[in-house]
Order: sequence, then C-alpha cells, then structure tokens
Amino acid sequence: MNKGRVLNILGKIVLTEVLLMIPSLAVALYYGEGDAKFFLYTMLPAAALGFGLSRVQPQDSRMTSRDGYCIVAYAWILISLIGAVPLYLTGQFASYFQALFEIVSGFTTTGASVLAKPELLPHGVLFWRSFTHWIGGMGVLVFVMMIIPMKNDNSMHLVRAEVPGPIAGKLAPRMKKTSTILYGIYTTMTAVLVILLLLGGVSLFDSLCLSFGAAGTGGFTLSSAGIAGYDSAYVEILLGIFMILFGINFNLYYLILVGRIRDALGSEEARCFLGIIAVATLAIAVNIASLCASLGESLRHAFFQVSSIITTTGFATVDFNLWPEFSKHTLVLLMVIGACAGSTGGGLKISRVIILVKSFLAEIRYIVSPKSVQTVRLEHKYVDKVTLNSTRTYAAAYLMLVALSTLLLSLDGFNLITNLTAVLSCINNIGPGLDLVGPMANFGIYSDWAMVLLSLVMLIGRLEIFPIFMLFSRSVHRK
Amino acid sequence: MNKGRVLNILGKIVLTEVLLMIPSLAVALYYGEGDAKFFLYTMLPAAALGFGLSRVQPQDSRMTSRDGYCIVAYAWILISLIGAVPLYLTGQFASYFQALFEIVSGFTTTGASVLAKPELLPHGVLFWRSFTHWIGGMGVLVFVMMIIPMKNDNSMHLVRAEVPGPIAGKLAPRMKKTSTILYGIYTTMTAVLVILLLLGGVSLFDSLCLSFGAAGTGGFTLSSAGIAGYDSAYVEILLGIFMILFGINFNLYYLILVGRIRDALGSEEARCFLGIIAVATLAIAVNIASLCASLGESLRHAFFQVSSIITTTGFATVDFNLWPEFSKHTLVLLMVIGACAGSTGGGLKISRVIILVKSFLAEIRYIVSPKSVQTVRLEHKYVDKVTLNSTRTYAAAYLMLVALSTLLLSLDGFNLITNLTAVLSCINNIGPGLDLVGPMANFGIYSDWAMVLLSLVMLIGRLEIFPIFMLFSRSVHRK
Repeated sequence: MNKGRVLNILGKIVLTEVLLMIPSLAVALYYGEGDAKFFLYTMLPAAALGFGLSRVQPQDSRMTSRDGYCIVAYAWILISLIGAVPLYLTGQFASYFQALFEIVSGFTTTGASVLAKPELLPHGVLFWRSFTHWIGGMGVLVFVMMIIPMKNDNSMHLVRAEVPGPIAGKLAPRMKKTSTILYGIYTTMTAVLVILLLLGGVSLFDSLCLSFGAAGTGGFTLSSAGIAGYDSAYVEILLGIFMILFGINFNLYYLILVGRIRDALGSEEARCFLGIIAVATLAIAVNIASLCASLGESLRHAFFQVSSIITTTGFATVDFNLWPEFSKHTLVLLMVIGACAGSTGGGLKISRVIILVKSFLAEIRYIVSPKSVQTVRLEHKYVDKVTLNSTRTYAAAYLMLVALSTLLLSLDGFNLITNLTAVLSCINNIGPGLDLVGPMANFGIYSDWAMVLLSLVMLIGRLEIFPIFMLFSRSVHRK
Repeated sequence: MNKGRVLNILGKIVLTEVLLMIPSLAVALYYGEGDAKFFLYTMLPAAALGFGLSRVQPQDSRMTSRDGYCIVAYAWILISLIGAVPLYLTGQFASYFQALFEIVSGFTTTGASVLAKPELLPHGVLFWRSFTHWIGGMGVLVFVMMIIPMKNDNSMHLVRAEVPGPIAGKLAPRMKKTSTILYGIYTTMTAVLVILLLLGGVSLFDSLCLSFGAAGTGGFTLSSAGIAGYDSAYVEILLGIFMILFGINFNLYYLILVGRIRDALGSEEARCFLGIIAVATLAIAVNIASLCASLGESLRHAFFQVSSIITTTGFATVDFNLWPEFSKHTLVLLMVIGACAGSTGGGLKISRVIILVKSFLAEIRYIVSPKSVQTVRLEHKYVDKVTLNSTRTYAAAYLMLVALSTLLLSLDGFNLITNLTAVLSCINNIGPGLDLVGPMANFGIYSDWAMVLLSLVMLIGRLEIFPIFMLFSRSVHRK
C-alpha cells in the first residue's frame, strides 16, 4: 500500500467533509437553536486533522486499484466517525454508537433511525443528517474528485470502488469531467424536486431535507409522522416518481443529454426496473384493496411503497407492517433486489439480478449440452468472465453476510423477522424493516454493540462488500 | 432426448418401486389393519404401467448426461405420484395433495408431515412412509442401478444427477459396483442402529422405522410425541451420534474399508462438519442453560438438536421453537449449511460452503492483486473452473428460489418466519421449521396449492436445483 498517498488523500477527504458541514452550520446559525457550537466543536479539530494528514507527502504519486479500495473504505469510516460528533453533542442519542449508527445510516443512504422523535433535534443537525444522504448517494469520493486535482488513473480506481453496480463505467475520458457531469445532473434533478415540493406548499427547510432524502434514496424524515405528516397526495406522488428517477442509472440521463435518447430508452436494466415496479404495484394494490377506501388509494399507497422500497429510500406513508403477508413478503423481496446500478439506490442491483438469472439459465443450458459454450449478455453486450465470477461470488457473499449478521444480531434477543429484516434493511441501505423495526418503529431497540455491527453492515452494503473486507486482508498492508 | 431409452428406464424404476412396496405389504398383512389392500390397489396398476413402459424399445442404447438428468427428475416425480396412493387411501389425508406432500417429504428425506397424529395411520403405511426415507436417502436411481444391468456410462450420468454435492465421485470403476458398495455400507450401518435401538428397549417396528429415518436423515417419527416419546437418554444420544455418521460423505467409509484410514480422517469437509457441530452445540448449550436442570441436560439437548438439524434429519426431542432467539437463529443457519456431500443429508452441503467461502477470499485477493491468478482448493485438490462456476451459480439460484417460494407461499397468509423457515426446511430437506411449522406443529396448515409448491421445493432441494428446472428447458426435449 502506498501509505503516504492514502494518508494524503484521506486528509483531503476530511477537509472536504469540513467544507460540507458549512451549510449545516449556516442553518444552525439561522435558527439559533444552539447547535452551531456542535458544528464548530467538530469542524475545528477535523480541519486540524485534515490539514495534518494532507501534508503527508507521498513518495510517489502512483496509486493501485488496491489503494483505491482502501482509501474508499477508510474514507467512509473516517467521515462517519467525524460526522457523528455533532449528532452526539445534541444529547439526543443514548450513546456515541447510536449517533454513529445514525450518521452511517445517513451517508450510506439507509435512512434507518434510532430516534423516536427526530423533531427534537435542532434544525442545523437535522439538516446535516439529511445532507449526508445527498452526499452519500452520489458518493463522497466522486465529490472529492470534482474539487481536487488528481491523476486520471488514480481517480478511476476510486470510482470503481465507490460507484455501485457490477460494471463501473466512465462517461467522459477524464474522471474529473465524469464526476462533474454526474453531480451536475444530480444537483439539477434535486433542485427541480425542491421547487416542485415548494409549489406543493412544503416549507423550504422540509423541501430541502426531503429532496436530499429522495435524491440520495436515503429516507430520513424530519418528524415521527414521516411523509404521512404532510398529508398531501401531491407530495406523495411527486416523491414516488422522483425516487424512481433517482433509482435509475445516471448514465442514462447523460445519454439523453448528449442526444442518444434511443440508447437510453433501450436500457435493459431500466426497463426491467420499471417492469418490476409496475407488477409489484399492481399486485400489492390488489392485495391491500380491502384496507383502502378506493382503488385509487390502494394504487397510490402501493406505488409509493414499492417505489420507496425498491429504490431503497425507505420513506413510508403507511404502516406496511400491518399489510397482508403477501404484500409484506413482496416488499422484502424488493428490498433485496434494489435499484439500478450507477444510481443512488442500494440492494443487489437490478443488473446483478439479471446477470444471476441469466447465469442460472446458462448453467442449465450447459448441463443440457456440456459441449456448448454458454455466455451471458447484458445491455446487448457480453458480460466478461471476471464480472460474471465476481457477480456470482457477490451473491454468495451476500447470502453468507446476511446469515451471519442475523445470527450475531440475535444475541440481543429479538425475533427472526426483526433481525433478518433489520439486516436486509441495513445491507441494502433501505431504512425500515418489519415487526420491531417496521416503518413506524425505530432501531433504538438494539444495544450498542449491535449498533456497531449494523453500522458495519450498512457500510459493507453501500460499498458493495469487498472494500471493507479488504481492510482485513494481510496482503493489502504489504508494500 | 432419447425418448425410448427414458421411457424404458422409467418403466424399470416403477417396477422397482413396486418391489420396494413388498416389505410394507408384508407389515400390513402381519398387523392386519386393513391397509394391505391399499398397497395392492397401488402395486397392481403400477406394475402394469411399469411393464408397459419397460417394453418400449429404445432405438439405441446411448444416453447423454441430459437424458440422465431428465430420467432422474421424471423418476422422482413418478415414484412420488405412485407412492402417495397408499397414504391417500387411508383417508387420513385431507386431499391427495397432502398425501403427495407427505410422500415427497419421505423420499426427499425431509420428514415434514401434515399429520398431527401419525399414530392414526395403520402400521403398513407407517412403515412405507419411513421406508421411503431409507430409499430416498441413498438414492432411488442408485438402488435401481444395483439391480438392473446398465451400460457404465449411462449409470454414471444418473449418479451425477442424483448424488448430492458439487463433485460426484465413483468408488469403483464400474457404477454397478459403486452402488453395491454404497448400499452395502448403508445397510450395515442401518442394521447396527436397529440392533442398538432394540438393545435400548425400543420395539422392532419402531427400531426399524426410526433407523430408516436416521439413516436417510429423514425425520419422520411414529407418533405426535416424536423422539421425546421414548423418554430415553440412550435413544437420544444413540440417534444423535448416528445422524452425524449418516451425514458424513460415504466415500470416507469406503476409504476406511479399503484401509486408507489416514485419507478418511484427513477429510477437510468432515473435519469442518464436526467442527461446526462442536461449536454450535457448545454455543446453544450455554444459551439454553437456564432452561435446563443441569449442564448435562443442556448439552444433551443442544447436541441432539444440532445433530438433527445440520444433518437435515429433523428429529426433535424438545420444542426448540421455545428456545432463546440466538439458539433458534443458529439452528436456522445450520439448516442452510446442511451435511456433507455424498451423504444422505441435504442443505447447501459443507463442501459447497467451503468452496463459497474460499471463492470469496479468492475474490478479495484478486481485487488486491488483479494480476494474480487465484485458485480454490478443496480436500487438497484444485477445484476446476466448471465446478467453481456451477457452485457459485448454485448459491445464487438457491437464494432466488428461497426468495420466490417464500413470496408465493405468503398467499396463504401466514407470517414471514413461518413461510421462510417452511421453505428453508423443504429446500434443505430438514422437516421442522419455526413458529407455525415448528417441531411440535405440522405442515397441515397450508392449502393444497402450497402443498404442490412445497413438494416441488423439496424435490428441487433433493435433486440440487438443476434437474427439475431442466424439464422446463426447451432444448431438452429436442432430439
């Protein structure tokens, strides 16, 4: 590992986080609820640390893909440790670990909360909590790359480790340009949503925070009433549509921008994503029809919840924990499937599911005709062997991690539905689970060590398993 | 597909099933409870069908591996459809589908029952129900191969499709000899268990049926009281040990027989299997200590249940549904792991889990050093690429099947723990699940269509996913 290079970049990342706290500090000063000092207490030592680290001079500027993975893993842990401090200082969290869980849930765009009443937090901290969704959704490193000069190869390594999905693409020959395009599209779409929410009568503060939550497919809301508190079909349908838009691969928006509209509309992954949403919405609408006043209402609830869960946002307008079993089971399945690769959403990702299903069919064809050569195609292109192997191994690792984490969580004594859906909710970066961690409950039931475990599970899910485990690999720390 | 060859062999398999019903007919005649006629009503038409099919002359005797998979899949469906008839005729089952579920549960060595009181069945049918465990454990086709002359290549194709595990081996150059050796070891071990049970004061009938259940790692018991009904620590510990013996790869016993004891003791899979049993037993014993009168008692209960679940037998001496959550979660994890390849047990199989874990570590090493060549070793040999791919695809297919079957099952309206553990119990061929399908409950709660679904899931699990799905592949039915 190029230690100097890693420390140097980590320093710059910490400094970036300090910069990113400025808007929240401004909000805190505007509302004058006393939380401005919590930000200063965090930002000043963090800035000192950041300056110190960034003064480490790397012996050479080269960076391997291994260094890229390590930087991403360390960076996410570091910004979480620092980002949790203002939350902890409010005194609303029973322990630092609960605050850590909350901010990891923010950065990883999970949106699971330990707070029964988030409205008790001062506005500056509430803003920071939602803002971490927005940064975490598109990626901290992708943001850093926009503002820090870096060699092109080096930044490619970082993007590959941070952007979700089985295949990392680049939009422009230079990564700096790629990240600027991505954040440009992202900011524009977020701004449009803010304006539309304002037009729906939502306050500026709430519009901003909800838009951060929807854009990052995070899911933090600002009060215990959640989205239902706005009591507006307009807000509900608007968010339902925008969550889906943010769950689609951002490369498609780029294709549309450069006029390749046909290519964008032909995307296999996006079509499959929208198809699953349509089928699941109809199935749930029929299943919950008897609980709703009209067909329109059941369609609206089903659409919002399907959109919220498959995009792994986790907003809730109703307590789906009370829905019939079939609807609940469907939502759990959607949790695992997740959104499109290259979007801000989590989960296994649609493209991975497509590759896995096609691998399974290819395996059957191979058994039928052992002499044949079987290939898997995605978006009309052959999937290369390395990606195929890595995707299959990913699924197996996912299965093992879910099983093991659920087992460890059971030491806290809660039941299987609660623990399993808590783990699924965290590894897929969703937010609510079922039963004791259902949409109207919170994760405050778990002990401190479970908080650490679940924080790790969220990071593992957001960074797609491998980077975090690489930190434990002996060979990584060799020169 | 070589249609003539397939029909011809299916005919011989049906005739073999008729032969295998003779002991049960004898038991029925001995007890004189009126069930002898149920067997005759089944055996006579089945014999006619078998003769008819076996008179189909194949145009050529060649058989491809594809034909092998198809024969195995069709054979298991056919013997289940026929084998369910005597059960259905007793009138103890609400529908033919319930009887079908029960006998598929028998052949696949699942041991899940729809009956609250199996003791209401006449002895002949009870015997048949347990006997299907014994046949299904080692394999129907493996049995057929012993008694029917067949080309060596052809029988190899059948064994590969029926014997569980990622890698199918043969003990002797000729498959007929291999199956004779396997059934020889199997019969001897079963006979030893019968004698030891008799010595423990268990009746001959019960000793035979319990031994069939333990040998096949099936798990049917003869009354609602289950193994607890014998109220004997001797019986409990004896069964606990023998279940483990039957959960070990039978190739190891062959190695011991031919004097290669060191090779047998060095088996990575067997060591890992025994290691998991030891750790899980201790962990559960500590966890349930407060529920038991003494440490000895908690160790005994923990050992029996761990042995019963990891070998996928499913016998129960206590209602582990009432155990603390950690113990229940551990048992669910053991359900998924399962026994050794080449044993009579089900589940993912220890060797597959080893390959998956090592694949994961290899993938991490590959990311760390993308230029390196990463390999996976099992039992000190390199695992070839075809097996690696097939194992990873297997895990992914397993995950998808469990998710989809659980979703479909939710249409019956039961909760997630019940449905998920019912599916895990069926696909891993265990028997009990948790909650409404816990060890002291039964599968009678499910509707007829769920019975068909779960029967299919048991067959998919026993035949390790691919054969059943091949039946739906268009190319299979091409010439």
